[in-house]
Amino acid sequence: MSILTRPILEINLGNLCENYRFLQKLADGAVAAAVVKDDAYGLGAEVIAAKLYNDAGCRSFFVAHGIEGEKIRPHVANAKIYVLQGIGEDSLESFRKAELIPVIAGREQLEFWKEHRIPGIKPVIQIESGLNRLGFREHELETMSQDDRNLFSLVLSHLACADEKGHFMNEHQLENFNRLRQKYFPKLPATLSASDGTFLGKEYLFDMVRIGAAMYGINTAPYRENQMLPVVKIMAPVLEISPLCRGEFVGYSATYRAADDRKIAIVSIGYGDGIPRSLSNVGKIFFRNGGKICEARIIGKVSMDNIICDVTEVENLQVGDMAFVVDDFYTLDDIGRDAGTIGYEVLSRIGKNTRFDRRYTD
Amino acid sequence: MSILTRPILEINLGNLCENYRFLQKLADGAVAAAVVKDDAYGLGAEVIAAKLYNDAGCRSFFVAHGIEGEKIRPHVANAKIYVLQGIGEDSLESFRKAELIPVIAGREQLEFWKEHRIPGIKPVIQIESGLNRLGFREHELETMSQDDRNLFSLVLSHLACADEKGHFMNEHQLENFNRLRQKYFPKLPATLSASDGTFLGKEYLFDMVRIGAAMYGINTAPYRENQMLPVVKIMAPVLEISPLCRGEFVGYSATYRAADDRKIAIVSIGYGDGIPRSLSNVGKIFFRNGGKICEARIIGKVSMDNIICDVTEVENLQVGDMAFVVDDFYTLDDIGRDAGTIGYEVLSRIGKNTRFDRRYTD
Repeated sequence: MSILTRPILEINLGNLCENYRFLQKLADGAVAAAVVKDDAYGLGAEVIAAKLYNDAGCRSFFVAHGIEGEKIRPHVANAKIYVLQGIGEDSLESFRKAELIPVIAGREQLEFWKEHRIPGIKPVIQIESGLNRLGFREHELETMSQDDRNLFSLVLSHLACADEKGHFMNEHQLENFNRLRQKYFPKLPATLSASDGTFLGKEYLFDMVRIGAAMYGINTAPYRENQMLPVVKIMAPVLEISPLCRGEFVGYSATYRAADDRKIAIVSIGYGDGIPRSLSNVGKIFFRNGGKICEARIIGKVSMDNIICDVTEVENLQVGDMAFVVDDFYTLDDIGRDAGTIGYEVLSRIGKNTRFDRRYTD
Repeated sequence: MSILTRPILEINLGNLCENYRFLQKLADGAVAAAVVKDDAYGLGAEVIAAKLYNDAGCRSFFVAHGIEGEKIRPHVANAKIYVLQGIGEDSLESFRKAELIPVIAGREQLEFWKEHRIPGIKPVIQIESGLNRLGFREHELETMSQDDRNLFSLVLSHLACADEKGHFMNEHQLENFNRLRQKYFPKLPATLSASDGTFLGKEYLFDMVRIGAAMYGINTAPYRENQMLPVVKIMAPVLEISPLCRGEFVGYSATYRAADDRKIAIVSIGYGDGIPRSLSNVGKIFFRNGGKICEARIIGKVSMDNIICDVTEVENLQVGDMAFVVDDFYTLDDIGRDAGTIGYEVLSRIGKNTRFDRRYTD
């Protein structure tokens, strides 16, 4: 018997690279830029950018903030690093030091850029095609001078519903994007799709796709089986196994009551490690018994450091055994669904926690 | 006009110390131990432990994992550091190096401790009083030898429903705890309450209370007005302001449609910064217009880097202005309620994100 207390986060860099290559092939000649914003969705932007640069030949990266670009620059010396949230007084130094390329999405940022231009850098222009988030609207493009239009090197927009293949918004945005770029930036290369758009067909690929969630194993085309390899696994040790008698309550606010005698296990992971509290009384934890995978329901509220689950039907379980929290058979997407959210959010929460024994594998 | 792109996280250490002192007074002579697990709920355990040690005289700290204890040890030289998740093979080194005190909650851990005893350290025993989480059950206490019982220095349990003053579980657990400790550990000092229990009355105080959430500004006694000072403020800049025409959709999956012409603002913060995605179409963002606080509803899905809100009624708003995401008038507890969770979980998610311009104030 092992006595263990810490949860383990395993990040498979080999599978990550395989996913990147799969998507690069799907991109069919378009540049496959890697999205490593939000600390590579929490998995460690420095490690992941370096891996993609060295082993997969990736030479274009997207981050959200200047500070994120500055952080990865030493690991991707000759790559282009694009910054989606644009440039401002609070990030100018990062842009200068790390030679970052801002994605400019509005008139005010454009004015700022013209005042603080960085030699050798040609920004990206983001235009609005239907998401109604960041991007120049058509009335702004109409009044933009040709000199201003000539400042840019790439035209970018972003899809709202690309994870739903039949959604009318996809075609609507594609038409908008084509019309606007042909009218205002006829000579510029273009990029419309993130991971999900890359699955929609060749007309969505343009000159570049921006590969994020799918590379990390998320199913961004949920209308069919996931074609991505899993990148993240999470395990956590069982701290205790106890009988639970009929009529007893479990966890904060006493939200679970045993209708008959049960057996429970306390697993050393909680919302403090990024596991959504909304899995309370809903989510699942798994155990392995020889070759068999055994499902155990989460009971009571998920607390900061612990999850309690019903192991009445799990045979041969011992203190110190590992619970499988995220695995091939219960993915980030599955957790997202059970937690009332999406795999992206679950992923983004998990890797930032320093209590994990974090292991990069290949 | 300022052009800014990064969200700001302000942590008021002065208010944190004031909250600690308030709770210390409420503890009425019991030791007020500070709970700094989960990186001080994301706010930075090293900074906060140092502040409490140096400015508030705190000499007892609780963490969840050995590695967390090791991290704060250099900042709290002569303090006791208790580790709630106990001790195991994966944390033994931390215990030895940093002279940590394990909270032992089961027979297997007790056996492990007896094999790996650290000279000069007397562990805490956790006993189960009704939460049905970690802790020795009575049948295990009955068969424990007197020698084993003599190993411990403190007896600990934890309340399930202390944030509901009238809940029957409080009295039930108090009775259980008193009966068990008097029967099996009559001479040991005792601790039952965290922040919430500290508000329940003198019989819940015993020799020590464990002050966490309330110290960070959370209302752990939500049946009355919060008596804590706010510790956390979050601001984020407006990146763009745009018209939204009748019939247009907003954000991923097109979950919001404008019934008439509106004005929207794109705010540079999202679930990648820990803001719950479940605030989509539900939560609020605030702006200041002179002395006036203006409420703006979040519309569409919260995305990883951005939140879109309806600012039709917000006058004089400009790109670069700050949106107030967490403040005195819209607290972590308020966000928790709107997001379908609790302030504890929101707090625990926020501070771990490195994209914040993090500012400690006093």
